[in-house]
Amino acid sequence: MQVYLDNNATTMCDPLVVDAMLPFFSELYGNPNSLHKFGTATHPAIKKAIDQVYTALNAGDNDDIIFTSCATESNNWVLKSVYHDLIQHGEKNHIITTEVEHPSVLATCRALEDDGVKVTYLPVNEDGVVEAHTVKSFITERTALVSVMWASNETGSIFPIKEISEVCQEKGVLFHSDAVQAIGKIPVDLTDVKVDFVSMSAHKFHGPKGVGALYIRNSRKLSPLLNGGEHMGGRRSGTLNVPYIVGMGKAIELATTNIEEKMASIRAKRDRLEDAILELDDTFVVGKRENRTPNTILISIRGVEGEGMLWDLNNGQIGASTGSACASEDLEANTVMLAIGADNELAHTGIRLSLSRFTTDEEIDYTIDHFKKAVLRLRGISSSFAKQKPTAGGEVKECELHHH
Amino acid sequence: MQVYLDNNATTMCDPLVVDAMLPFFSELYGNPNSLHKFGTATHPAIKKAIDQVYTALNAGDNDDIIFTSCATESNNWVLKSVYHDLIQHGEKNHIITTEVEHPSVLATCRALEDDGVKVTYLPVNEDGVVEAHTVKSFITERTALVSVMWASNETGSIFPIKEISEVCQEKGVLFHSDAVQAIGKIPVDLTDVKVDFVSMSAHKFHGPKGVGALYIRNSRKLSPLLNGGEHMGGRRSGTLNVPYIVGMGKAIELATTNIEEKMASIRAKRDRLEDAILELDDTFVVGKRENRTPNTILISIRGVEGEGMLWDLNNGQIGASTGSACASEDLEANTVMLAIGADNELAHTGIRLSLSRFTTDEEIDYTIDHFKKAVLRLRGISSSFAKQKPTAGGEVKECELHHH
Ligand SMILES: Cc1ncc(COP(=O)(O)O)c(C=O)c1O
Ligand SMILES: Cc1ncc(COP(=O)(O)O)c(C=O)c1O
Repeated sequence: MQVYLDNNATTMCDPLVVDAMLPFFSELYGNPNSLHKFGTATHPAIKKAIDQVYTALNAGDNDDIIFTSCATESNNWVLKSVYHDLIQHGEKNHIITTEVEHPSVLATCRALEDDGVKVTYLPVNEDGVVEAHTVKSFITERTALVSVMWASNETGSIFPIKEISEVCQEKGVLFHSDAVQAIGKIPVDLTDVKVDFVSMSAHKFHGPKGVGALYIRNSRKLSPLLNGGEHMGGRRSGTLNVPYIVGMGKAIELATTNIEEKMASIRAKRDRLEDAILELDDTFVVGKRENRTPNTILISIRGVEGEGMLWDLNNGQIGASTGSACASEDLEANTVMLAIGADNELAHTGIRLSLSRFTTDEEIDYTIDHFKKAVLRLRGISSSFAKQKPTAGGEVKECELHHH
Repeated sequence: MQVYLDNNATTMCDPLVVDAMLPFFSELYGNPNSLHKFGTATHPAIKKAIDQVYTALNAGDNDDIIFTSCATESNNWVLKSVYHDLIQHGEKNHIITTEVEHPSVLATCRALEDDGVKVTYLPVNEDGVVEAHTVKSFITERTALVSVMWASNETGSIFPIKEISEVCQEKGVLFHSDAVQAIGKIPVDLTDVKVDFVSMSAHKFHGPKGVGALYIRNSRKLSPLLNGGEHMGGRRSGTLNVPYIVGMGKAIELATTNIEEKMASIRAKRDRLEDAILELDDTFVVGKRENRTPNTILISIRGVEGEGMLWDLNNGQIGASTGSACASEDLEANTVMLAIGADNELAHTGIRLSLSRFTTDEEIDYTIDHFKKAVLRLRGISSSFAKQKPTAGGEVKECELHHH
């Protein structure tokens, strides 16, 4: 049996999405900007895809949703263009974000610091989130933008985006949220929650890798990151990737229709897996269960190196992660665990398991069995666990991890 | 019969390319950055695609070829990062380009002018190209970059890139070439021609829309346009678009293997079509035939509005263009024709026909027949042609178009 439990890194493209895309490679292959029939034949499908994204997010008619090549592009676009428009060519000098954003936000902020921007990286609390009043207390007259993720790729923790959006509106500061890990996992309603910019990526909800979008409330002015022809109203140039746009529309529709039902089923499997692993001694899950995306577990197994565990699972045909796929080649400590106060040793014990609607109960059974055996095996050969095994949760409190 | 003669706008994805991509949607769907088997299973295919691109361009081991989402991204990346690194944070202040670049270069240069960059837009000569000595005469101590396209999307005219590269090397100035319309149409050998940066896009050579690359000679330092995780050595972040990378590799291999033979066949069809149209009175083709990409004709039919012709061809199921697809929604005058000195009326008469290796002789026969009838029909209802019909090429010389 093969079990893919790394759906926060990327997902399988839904075969229904592939079917929707296929005609646009070698049959309806015209450039949508062309005036002839080969070009205009693509328009109904593109229009449908746009409608599917608007519907899924409950976006308003005055809002723009612009397709990009990925959420990394969407994040870079917002941060660099706000820098360009309001800092380089304006009176602002400050951006607020969190310590646990995806590298596409963090590395961009670091690059902007080199250009003279003041960036505040807010730490997260023991639940792995930043509270609205904390954001509020750091906003100054010269703050151009607040950028806070909707849900964490590492822990699944859901940030109080509605409250933060209210704080930003009150203070008159632009607010961006990277909703890559929220869309398709929890309801995201952009009429209810007034965020100025929202980034998304299709491959996190069973669409293809290499297409994303940026939602822009009230079609607010924002310099393009990609200048060129007048594609998408001049907001993002480059020949439209028709198959992937069609695929993203189909994927977001499939992911968000009856999302509560779909998520209840994923949540039940996730909780069963989580409960089973927590039966083992000295295991800790990061973030309150009710405040996490329903598919995610970041679990720490004291005495077991995350990488060792990863290899053992891999040998059992189970795909998991020690955290963000983007950093995984580095074999670094889990940055979110460090951010919430874990010591360096414990931060190396994190294993992230992330389910999808394609995860089956049989796969969960198999994983529980393999996982438990792996922990016993690895703890058996781990000297540090034997030496450092804590008594009655002493260190647990110290590093602020949740023990269920 | 349907005839697609707009291959400079975009091409049909080769069914062999689609076949190569398909397994990477729902079977080998892992994130290449993941450490488990689902991730690493994608590595051989990515490595193969990279090899295919290096081989096709005869790139060196020390050179980088970084996948992007399109040539628009590649062009924006080079221009904006050279601005960032050498102008905003350096002593340079000047970029040289041409008046006939693609909008992704021109609009970016205009945006950089707003940021204080001095941009020289070189006009083209009667052949639609810029000569190396002209470039040389505009290079100053403070020139950061020269950006000249390898071949024109509008006319097919081939620029003297080797000579310009030698001028730039001599002057110690960075040289970028947008080779979107050259790759797959003429041999592009990056060991022979020493350009620092080369942009390309798969959908112009029967790959998918939405994937391109930037070649970077000697892996020269260049700030990323998309910051983030350490994808592609930190040069371009965003989860790798595995299917399209595989597709681009396959497409460039198919397009460049035995390119001379393939092009001889396209050239024969193109010349036959061109000769047949030139039998009509007062028709002019832009650019010397031997100095054009073998698939392209930009033809001017005096007295026939390009848009009228486009509609007539469209009714006959023939897809053509009045010029760049990126501007085609504007129904503007052909910018290259204006640049080479055509008056405004004549510049509205351009029709671009661009063939591919999938164009058949039957399609050419059909097109010749339909085209000739359309010209007669449209000239019949065109009062301006009747009024302004020139005698013995009087105006022709003035507007510097080539009459074959
Ligand atoms: C929270 C978050 N933001 C952004 C991204 C980047 O998405 P993409 O790979 O589409 O650029 C990811 C995943 O890689 C993510 O998890
Ligand atoms: C010369 C040239 N450069 C750049 C581009 C842009 O390519 P893409 O649509 O992949 O961004 C095109 C075509 O659209 C082109 O013809």
